Amino acid sequence: MNLGGVDMTDWMKIHEQTKKWLLDASERILASFDMDIDISTKANANDLVTNLDKETEIFFNDKIKQSYPTHRVLGEEGYGDQITDTSGIIWIIDPIDGTMNFVHQQRNFFISIGIYEDGIGKLGYIYDVVQEELYYAISGIGAYWDGKKLPKLTEGKIEESIIGLSSMWLVNNKHLDVTKTLMPLIKDIRSTRAYGSAALEFSYVATGRLDGYINMRLAPWDFAGGKVIIEELGGVVTNLKGEPLQILESGPVVVARPGVHKKIIHEYLLKT
Amino acid sequence: MNLGGVDMTDWMKIHEQTKKWLLDASERILASFDMDIDISTKANANDLVTNLDKETEIFFNDKIKQSYPTHRVLGEEGYGDQITDTSGIIWIIDPIDGTMNFVHQQRNFFISIGIYEDGIGKLGYIYDVVQEELYYAISGIGAYWDGKKLPKLTEGKIEESIIGLSSMWLVNNKHLDVTKTLMPLIKDIRSTRAYGSAALEFSYVATGRLDGYINMRLAPWDFAGGKVIIEELGGVVTNLKGEPLQILESGPVVVARPGVHKKIIHEYLLKT
Repeated sequence: MNLGGVDMTDWMKIHEQTKKWLLDASERILASFDMDIDISTKANANDLVTNLDKETEIFFNDKIKQSYPTHRVLGEEGYGDQITDTSGIIWIIDPIDGTMNFVHQQRNFFISIGIYEDGIGKLGYIYDVVQEELYYAISGIGAYWDGKKLPKLTEGKIEESIIGLSSMWLVNNKHLDVTKTLMPLIKDIRSTRAYGSAALEFSYVATGRLDGYINMRLAPWDFAGGKVIIEELGGVVTNLKGEPLQILESGPVVVARPGVHKKIIHEYLLKT
Repeated sequence: MNLGGVDMTDWMKIHEQTKKWLLDASERILASFDMDIDISTKANANDLVTNLDKETEIFFNDKIKQSYPTHRVLGEEGYGDQITDTSGIIWIIDPIDGTMNFVHQQRNFFISIGIYEDGIGKLGYIYDVVQEELYYAISGIGAYWDGKKLPKLTEGKIEESIIGLSSMWLVNNKHLDVTKTLMPLIKDIRSTRAYGSAALEFSYVATGRLDGYINMRLAPWDFAGGKVIIEELGGVVTNLKGEPLQILESGPVVVARPGVHKKIIHEYLLKT
């Protein structure tokens, strides 16, 4: 018995519970799709996602508080706790990551959850609601996609890389001189992609479908789940200077295979 | 009986045949995935896609020549005919659209087919091999996704648009002064996406998941299938000046909902 903290057995129990809640929440979202007779208009999809965001966050908040009354919850919609320090166990939840995709595409959106203890990532989840694909990691045990253990991320080569990088960041960017940083990077890599969901881009880096992902503005709920998964695989998640993220703060995020990450930071972004 | 050309009955027969061949070709591609023991390395995926590209094009070429000896075939891999004019019936085939996605992601690649008579699009197909999703159009009859008839594309609003536009085109672009054209466009729209497959982006415009797509360099096999689908839905497919595409020529392509297309051309691209 462990009165002071949470031992490995407890984490496995929390993991099994979280997986079940993810499936339950996902089913509720998909059922709302079916019930909504006019999801094909954007205005209607907008209302639906607003409701589902709230309902899904409240669903998780209630479940967590019932099962783990000492845990705190940080959610995008604000139905969790007001959190200013990282002590204890904190669930960081994005009930629907990729809201614009939900509204415009009715696909490519995710439930994302990161569970941290004293600021250290323990469990991470990215769930593709429409494709029913689960990516998760248990810190120290492994990261999984579709039930299969994912291999560690290799170093990678910058010139063979595909990087998640929206063209929006070349136009509006107060963080970088893009002509000295992002543009030379884009010239040197193989290609870029932009999917409109941080959860999707993290899951693509985790599975090697992307070699990196750069975003100028991610909130804790955007990266919390993905960070645990990427770090379990030996990938690197930092700010634009290569420093660790503050898990309660929003800002720029660079995630990549270890070798590619190092080059992005030192040979491109720090040239600003 | 119609000795001079192909009547509607014949087109429906060709359509049923094509659908069956698409499924057969797709099964062969997926079987190669299963047989390849080391698809997880990029070098190996590279070899596999090179072989599959060839095999799939030869598969279609053989089937078409057996069933329709007078039809001509234009394929990316060059196993079809040498074609310099648009007379008669021409099948334009991309056996694997999204080759880089195939190699890096093992998803997000497509078989794309457009069938033209005297330069006029008659049948168009985009098949998502991994997700097993078929988008197709029969000119004058309708366009379909997943067996359901797609609604006509509405005019759309530029400020609510999501446009498929890779950040690569902001860095290397000999066709446009990007600071006067693409950058102002990006500032005015809601967001951009980049998926690395013309077939995917055409299918997303067809289903309203994207409102437009701009690419500086598409070959006939990249746009032939998608063009038939988009035009059947009332969408517009042109070059950067708003002129019709030459279906045997490579070059820039702008595809969008009708109102969004008009604005992209006249309020942005022609400002160059």
